[in-house]
Amino acid sequence: MENKAVTKRSIRTYKESGFQEVEDIVATEYPLTLKVNGEELVTMVCSPDHLEDLAIGYLASEGLLKKYSDVKRIRLDEKKGFIHLELTHLNALYDQLQNKRYLSSCCGGSRQGFVFAHDALTAKSMKTRRSVQISPEVCLKSMQSLQESAETFKETGGVHNAALCNDQGIILSRMDIGRHNALDKIYGYCLRNQISLDGTFVVFSGRISSEILLKTAKIGCELVLSKSAPTERALELAEELGITTVGFIRGNSFNVYTYPERIK
Amino acid sequence: MENKAVTKRSIRTYKESGFQEVEDIVATEYPLTLKVNGEELVTMVCSPDHLEDLAIGYLASEGLLKKYSDVKRIRLDEKKGFIHLELTHLNALYDQLQNKRYLSSCCGGSRQGFVFAHDALTAKSMKTRRSVQISPEVCLKSMQSLQESAETFKETGGVHNAALCNDQGIILSRMDIGRHNALDKIYGYCLRNQISLDGTFVVFSGRISSEILLKTAKIGCELVLSKSAPTERALELAEELGITTVGFIRGNSFNVYTYPERIK
Repeated sequence: MENKAVTKRSIRTYKESGFQEVEDIVATEYPLTLKVNGEELVTMVCSPDHLEDLAIGYLASEGLLKKYSDVKRIRLDEKKGFIHLELTHLNALYDQLQNKRYLSSCCGGSRQGFVFAHDALTAKSMKTRRSVQISPEVCLKSMQSLQESAETFKETGGVHNAALCNDQGIILSRMDIGRHNALDKIYGYCLRNQISLDGTFVVFSGRISSEILLKTAKIGCELVLSKSAPTERALELAEELGITTVGFIRGNSFNVYTYPERIK
Repeated sequence: MENKAVTKRSIRTYKESGFQEVEDIVATEYPLTLKVNGEELVTMVCSPDHLEDLAIGYLASEGLLKKYSDVKRIRLDEKKGFIHLELTHLNALYDQLQNKRYLSSCCGGSRQGFVFAHDALTAKSMKTRRSVQISPEVCLKSMQSLQESAETFKETGGVHNAALCNDQGIILSRMDIGRHNALDKIYGYCLRNQISLDGTFVVFSGRISSEILLKTAKIGCELVLSKSAPTERALELAEELGITTVGFIRGNSFNVYTYPERIK
């Protein structure tokens, strides 16, 4: 349990019987500023855990680093809310990122978004293609496991949960108040620890937006499961990139939107 | 009903009995680029309705305009995804906004966020203070009305709904795939139509993040109701700005986090 991600508060709760003072738990928002080779790149608001993974995952997801060895040094100043990264080199995307302002519908992971990342990604995602196939039972069970693993945070509401799974269960799960951050934390962990992605897929508590779809592809997975709905744009990208999207996993049912052959 | 906000698709749905082909509705993501006095300011991803209101609400929320008469001209090029705004003058915040990169936890409405907007806001929100007080029944009923008004989009999942209400019911409700956009659409509409905010409050389907709290204050309301949870940072801001936050409105119960005297 990550205590820093939540805070206790005394609140008034109303039930039919009237008001009552109780103790409650709420999620913390922590502003983290990334400095890359001495220059401020971005400030992101997140749940304060796994911050190095988050920074690495964010940079990789934005195309600013390809592998963990591109990082020469990483230093977290948790008190001041800074993370200092030294990269061996800055690629062309760095300037684009500095000059482009892009707000995703929810929530700002990539101002590149629709704009540049796409071509590079198509190539990458085709290259890293792995074959994964799971049964409907594994679909349902994975979502159930994600929800159980998120139990600690259920009471705070409003946090997003993501997990990297295979057909044996959860390999790694992360939470964040920012929906894209949970996936960046997973991506960063995978890069730093050279986790094999064979047979893996992403399970996510929230909507599959184009952003979430792109992050799944960037991590290198070809299957994403969600409790919620996909957007049309996410499905267009999924079709292009060859990714299976499964949504509305609730009780004993779910919907498959693209490439149903991976759910057998 | 706004048809452009959703698209039909044929999908595979799984139930205990197996797979079946059905028709489904998914939400569209539409990238809209704001050009202010000829320069590109930002690209935001949104649901494609009420785009002028969204642009105006966004600029007002970022502090770039104070009143609708600061807008000389507004022209939407829906096909190309551009909205051209001519403002009578650009204030100091404009440069800050162009140079500051800020990702909120969800979703990027204000890179100013914690950073600048705060002081200006404290002043403003104190100035515009109105007195509103509602009963627990109105609390519960307003959330129920929001959910009923959102019925059309329920099936797509993953859209956010916001409404401006008074104790008589909903004055105005908006939806968007971006959580902050729904509030910007309301803000823009209020500015353009000089809607009186006396006795009004905000009802929102999602989490009360610091962003949503700030937008409520900027619109000029002092009470926000949500189906979901607030974050700690939102509650700190609410305390400073004198805003009542009510969360977890479900069935016949809810929680009051700050300034409970407005729920009598």
